[in-house]
Amino acid sequence: MKTPKMIMLPENEMPRQWYNIVADMPVQPQPMLNPQTRKPLLPEEMEGLFAKGLVEQEFSQKRWHDIPDEVRELYKSYRPTPLVRAYALEKALDTPARIYYKNESVSPVGSHKLNSALPQAYYNHIQGITSITTETGAGQWGSAMSIACRHFGLKLEVFMVKNSYNAKPYRKVVMKTYGADVYASPCDLTQYGKKVLSEDPTNGGSLGIAISEAVERAVTQPNTRYTLGSVLSHVLMHQTIIGLEAEKQMEMAGEYPDKVIACFGGGSNFSGISFPFLRHKFTEGRNVKLIAAEPAACPKLTKGKLEYDFGDTAGMTPLIPMYTLGHDFQPEQIHAAGLRYHGGGRIVSQLKQDGYLDSCAIEQKEAFDAGILFARSEGIIPAPESTHAIAATIREALKARESGKSEVILFNLSGHGFLDLGAYEQYV
Amino acid sequence: MKTPKMIMLPENEMPRQWYNIVADMPVQPQPMLNPQTRKPLLPEEMEGLFAKGLVEQEFSQKRWHDIPDEVRELYKSYRPTPLVRAYALEKALDTPARIYYKNESVSPVGSHKLNSALPQAYYNHIQGITSITTETGAGQWGSAMSIACRHFGLKLEVFMVKNSYNAKPYRKVVMKTYGADVYASPCDLTQYGKKVLSEDPTNGGSLGIAISEAVERAVTQPNTRYTLGSVLSHVLMHQTIIGLEAEKQMEMAGEYPDKVIACFGGGSNFSGISFPFLRHKFTEGRNVKLIAAEPAACPKLTKGKLEYDFGDTAGMTPLIPMYTLGHDFQPEQIHAAGLRYHGGGRIVSQLKQDGYLDSCAIEQKEAFDAGILFARSEGIIPAPESTHAIAATIREALKARESGKSEVILFNLSGHGFLDLGAYEQYV
Repeated sequence: MKTPKMIMLPENEMPRQWYNIVADMPVQPQPMLNPQTRKPLLPEEMEGLFAKGLVEQEFSQKRWHDIPDEVRELYKSYRPTPLVRAYALEKALDTPARIYYKNESVSPVGSHKLNSALPQAYYNHIQGITSITTETGAGQWGSAMSIACRHFGLKLEVFMVKNSYNAKPYRKVVMKTYGADVYASPCDLTQYGKKVLSEDPTNGGSLGIAISEAVERAVTQPNTRYTLGSVLSHVLMHQTIIGLEAEKQMEMAGEYPDKVIACFGGGSNFSGISFPFLRHKFTEGRNVKLIAAEPAACPKLTKGKLEYDFGDTAGMTPLIPMYTLGHDFQPEQIHAAGLRYHGGGRIVSQLKQDGYLDSCAIEQKEAFDAGILFARSEGIIPAPESTHAIAATIREALKARESGKSEVILFNLSGHGFLDLGAYEQYV
Repeated sequence: MKTPKMIMLPENEMPRQWYNIVADMPVQPQPMLNPQTRKPLLPEEMEGLFAKGLVEQEFSQKRWHDIPDEVRELYKSYRPTPLVRAYALEKALDTPARIYYKNESVSPVGSHKLNSALPQAYYNHIQGITSITTETGAGQWGSAMSIACRHFGLKLEVFMVKNSYNAKPYRKVVMKTYGADVYASPCDLTQYGKKVLSEDPTNGGSLGIAISEAVERAVTQPNTRYTLGSVLSHVLMHQTIIGLEAEKQMEMAGEYPDKVIACFGGGSNFSGISFPFLRHKFTEGRNVKLIAAEPAACPKLTKGKLEYDFGDTAGMTPLIPMYTLGHDFQPEQIHAAGLRYHGGGRIVSQLKQDGYLDSCAIEQKEAFDAGILFARSEGIIPAPESTHAIAATIREALKARESGKSEVILFNLSGHGFLDLGAYEQYV
């Protein structure tokens, strides 16, 4: 029987737990360090910045974590998301590869980011926190936190990279429509922002700077915590719902992926779709190849070094063992603003070090060509970030055409591009 | 048992036929007239302008029409769409009413328009037509036709109302990304466009003018046909898949709507969600109240007259018996550009005349307030058009609170507002 184009998972089959890959990793990731003492960071040292429930997950060695009922209820407004067999893309590429994608663009904010925003808001809420700060690059994470905070009655301040703030004016409208306060970072609301601006009044910002501002703001305001949309282990764990669903849906299609591909900024959507498959490699030796698609302008896994580095530009965060281009690295402006982060997170970096994942660097032109081919075949305009995953998929599918090898490729469509059409304008 | 928030219809339950309400109407709508002879229009007189398969549907008295397999396959890329119980909106309004909405915003172009674009492209394709023209106001219909034509290998020219073309720059990027040619109407590609511009070079266009240009272009180019996104009976019939799915989903929830509400431009999403319920009134006397939510700036049903009028500004179409504000009516600029059409179509107008539907006129401010309340409670930013349906729903829900009456309201969320954030910008 022919595989249907759309493979829908019944709502009652939506996973009830997130998967924590740390429990199965052959080599444990190095700990974060307190930058003053250079000693391993203790959970209590993170609790001034993050909600306790999230800190507990960050340090957890437990394989499975229950998804709270309140979060599951909110997930149900858009999950399970569809798994789609990309018949039209396969045809356009004339490839023997069978291509599937998980469509996370169907979330009400248009990306996978809501998967972690909801639990992050929830754990802050149940702790009695009343106010949240965060940063956002492209605006996907900020949009997701805006509606998540609204659901749980939390106030939210978003520090948005100034260049993106100006280049993507509609993103702030989304956040404000949901009720958040949005600032173009660097700004004079923080000491660090003031310092950056005094040295360079025209500074267009970066994710690292925006994180510094959001962190400073969180620790200086009453009953406030900070939230991060990627990199950290608890964020990656929340996103595993993508891959856990995809695993069931692939099974419904009678398939298992040879390759799992996602774009890579800080690792959230990449880890989300791939870790549940990697677990079978760890536990049963089942083979799967993971490919992180990075922008050529910010290739931390492809060209960075594994070392201790700060998560932000100001050096206010713990030291994180990660593949990094340096916490003061300033990537050039690319449309995929969500991929302009200098480092890769503890877990992903350890896995890369140990040979469990590959990466590739994609030039912007190749990414947009892939995005337009995808739009014209599959009908969905992808986010600039997601076009990198599509481009990497196309590379693999064309290799399969060359070799005549029939293989199964699964990639994550992390979001749609309706809020990034200014980027497409230059290509059509 | 508590009704789930999301009510998903299994894919194999997706309707296999469209519903043609003409078969059940107690009073048949008046025929269209040939404007020269003033005699009832014959099918063959329409075939120079529309594909044969669509003309056949336009004149059909048959109750059910099979959805072609090719169209059903493409529907499956986003259908069945979710029915959602609006718990959060109910709570925000403190109403005893149970509110449901059909979420058509999940389509890859963000609105219900694809439901008719796909079959329209299909029937042109199987006839061997190679090129299509159409008009678009807000851009929803043009976006839908762009991807539909791409699926069936048809060339497409879209005449977009100039004011919208300028106010919504990203809409044309969507259409061009999908491969369509887009012109700001009026333009000098047509004789009629040239005439309008010679009389008023600053003319910002209207749906009526854009229709005139698209029609002229279709009849003067080889192997080309015209397509329309609303008003005509075959378009309304394609959209009944919305209500047919909703009917099954309401049944799954153990409910039947007391009121069915949709915004009203030319009638496509309104008819789509409501006609399948109205059929039970005709066939079994089951009560249901239909409410068409119009913009106060263009209240054809609320303040227009039922008379024969042209469907376009130039007077190139057949005469249509419809509630109209006059084919030269120029509504003021409102953000809900998709509702700025002067008339209401034969079927809807006859039903209005016979008392089977009500209408209300909503000011823009009330519509946006409703849209923002919806975004903050339900998490989805609605299209400016859809905010009118939400506003009318809120009116009814507040009446229910006054009277303490528990009733069931179903409305259609025709699209999301990610491509209309410029409009929201002024309100946040």
